[in-house]
Amino acid sequence: MIEPFNDEYFMRKALEEAQLAYEEDEIPVGAVVVSQGKIIGRGHNMTERLNDVTAHAEMLAITAAANYLGGKYLRNCTLYVTLEPCSMCAGALFWTQISKVVFGASDEKRGYREFGSRLHPKTQLVEGILRNESTELLQQFFRSKRKK
Amino acid sequence: MIEPFNDEYFMRKALEEAQLAYEEDEIPVGAVVVSQGKIIGRGHNMTERLNDVTAHAEMLAITAAANYLGGKYLRNCTLYVTLEPCSMCAGALFWTQISKVVFGASDEKRGYREFGSRLHPKTQLVEGILRNESTELLQQFFRSKRKK
Repeated sequence: MIEPFNDEYFMRKALEEAQLAYEEDEIPVGAVVVSQGKIIGRGHNMTERLNDVTAHAEMLAITAAANYLGGKYLRNCTLYVTLEPCSMCAGALFWTQISKVVFGASDEKRGYREFGSRLHPKTQLVEGILRNESTELLQQFFRSKRKK
Repeated sequence: MIEPFNDEYFMRKALEEAQLAYEEDEIPVGAVVVSQGKIIGRGHNMTERLNDVTAHAEMLAITAAANYLGGKYLRNCTLYVTLEPCSMCAGALFWTQISKVVFGASDEKRGYREFGSRLHPKTQLVEGILRNESTELLQQFFRSKRKK
């Protein structure tokens, strides 16, 4: 069966968010929250613009999705994010009891697993979706920064 | 030397924030961020009112302090919070590189240490300031909930 709205489809939407961050000179990470095949929250990294370490893509997408649903739990939702969540974002995802988390690139230094942090036991984890595209966007960003 | 603005003084301010949460029917946790002897950010738990798991006292106080400073790092600041931070809040505190974290009551189940999470290596930790008052307020809240 052809499944047009698969993990790759939604990860591409998260990548579009990451591209927006890139254009705003932010570390390019993007996220979307999906419920019943529909995007109900979006976010891209805004830590520089907002001067706020809590303004990670995932945090903004989680808050947007909860606003949409009118409830703080995201039990039947999936979060797509281009980079492995940090400890803060994994902690937020834990509280939401989200069904599934899909990320693109791994973060060896600041990823939640390296930190010893964890997701909710009910949360399914999928990794590596559009890993290369997510990584390439990040590398391109840091290369352009080093040139300046 | 008498030090009027010591850890207990500011923890009492955090407790006042927790009391506000209690009055709003939120799990009573409060936080303040202090820089050079001055409170530059406050927050109390608003997860129910805002329908948002990210609206913990610490997160709101961090964002408020960063807004005040016009920068995302809280390197010369201290966060006072009545309850041990969770993994999300510890992750946020890590990113701020805050100088010092002081908490009241320990959280054996959901505290960041139980989660295996950690603060920034530069962050000094002090615990147990007004532990009894912080714990009593939480216990009073949960007792009143069970009665309903």
